Amino acid sequence: MSDSRPGVADLLGVLAYAELTAFLRLAEDAARHAPTLTDRAELGDLAAAEYAHFRLLRDRLVSIGADPEEAMAPFTEALDGWHERTAPNDWMEALVKAYVGTGIALDFYREAAARVDEETQALVEEVLADEERCRFAAERVGAALEKDPVLNGRLALWARRMVGEALSQGRRVAEARPELAALLVSSDGEDVTRMFTRLTEAHGRRMAALGLTPGP
Amino acid sequence: MSDSRPGVADLLGVLAYAELTAFLRLAEDAARHAPTLTDRAELGDLAAAEYAHFRLLRDRLVSIGADPEEAMAPFTEALDGWHERTAPNDWMEALVKAYVGTGIALDFYREAAARVDEETQALVEEVLADEERCRFAAERVGAALEKDPVLNGRLALWARRMVGEALSQGRRVAEARPELAALLVSSDGEDVTRMFTRLTEAHGRRMAALGLTPGP
Repeated sequence: MSDSRPGVADLLGVLAYAELTAFLRLAEDAARHAPTLTDRAELGDLAAAEYAHFRLLRDRLVSIGADPEEAMAPFTEALDGWHERTAPNDWMEALVKAYVGTGIALDFYREAAARVDEETQALVEEVLADEERCRFAAERVGAALEKDPVLNGRLALWARRMVGEALSQGRRVAEARPELAALLVSSDGEDVTRMFTRLTEAHGRRMAALGLTPGP
Repeated sequence: MSDSRPGVADLLGVLAYAELTAFLRLAEDAARHAPTLTDRAELGDLAAAEYAHFRLLRDRLVSIGADPEEAMAPFTEALDGWHERTAPNDWMEALVKAYVGTGIALDFYREAAARVDEETQALVEEVLADEERCRFAAERVGAALEKDPVLNGRLALWARRMVGEALSQGRRVAEARPELAALLVSSDGEDVTRMFTRLTEAHGRRMAALGLTPGP
């Protein structure tokens, strides 16, 4: 059954704009920071995958009778704001951002998956199947940290800034779009704060996977 | 039969880097200049198609035993130089660039198609099948020119600059890579100047299709 709760168009809209803007920003980071053409192509691969996800979400919006542009519009400010505050200054920061940003987005997909109709769930699973695509970023960062342990402090701080900015933009969105927030919390009295706590914990596990230890 | 003439890796290399960099630059233009999210997604579509072409070319390079990074390296300066000299200042310039740039690239594919082995020819045809993808850009520019005929002078000049820069970078590449130049001219005494003349004529037809009349 298709789900016509008002939060569903919001959910697809925020994910669609997140994918569209991730595609464009990753392409920009690839052009600007990749030290070799192979690196550039690899981050380009990830960017192109985000674009494919955007297409899925846009088509899904159209099929539920929503206008993609209208559905995305309420979220452009928060997502553009996040990208502006987390513009990487070099290749390592770009890789950490690709890994952390994609990870936060996938956690959000997982949170959403449990709460939507079957067709939307199928779409979410298709996106989640691409999860391994950002593994190269984790491997590069891990290798760089082994060679130069001094990087750890700077990149740990950078990753923390990224999740901090994501939570603060997320809170703004949840306040501005109560129907979306209502869709995302389960019925047993959970609130968005609990969801944000789970996202933060998942971020901690990703930091450990990168080999980044928390700073002082 | 696979073609092992030294110009073939050059040809695939220049096309591969052209597609990779077109993908990244179109994504950047979409992020920077698109006035609506629909426009942004449409230019994003074109960017993603360029990326798919890049993948085809990269895979073909690998299958003929060439290293994609090495094959692309001799052409990065000329192509980056072209993009730097033709960075659009607004959405109309971005659309004209998308249409003109894609058109020049496709003409070049067509020139190349007649002179390579069958597998490479199949790849070229796959790319050429995407030719209609930039039609939206021509339609938008045409509509804008109807509303505001004053645009004509500025955009005609802009388009001329683009093809002029392409020819001057093209000449540099032909001089630096004689094997590529040799591959591109047919055996009956043609030289690259004749090929460049054909490309310029094709550009004139595209300008007419856009509704752009030559300036004074």
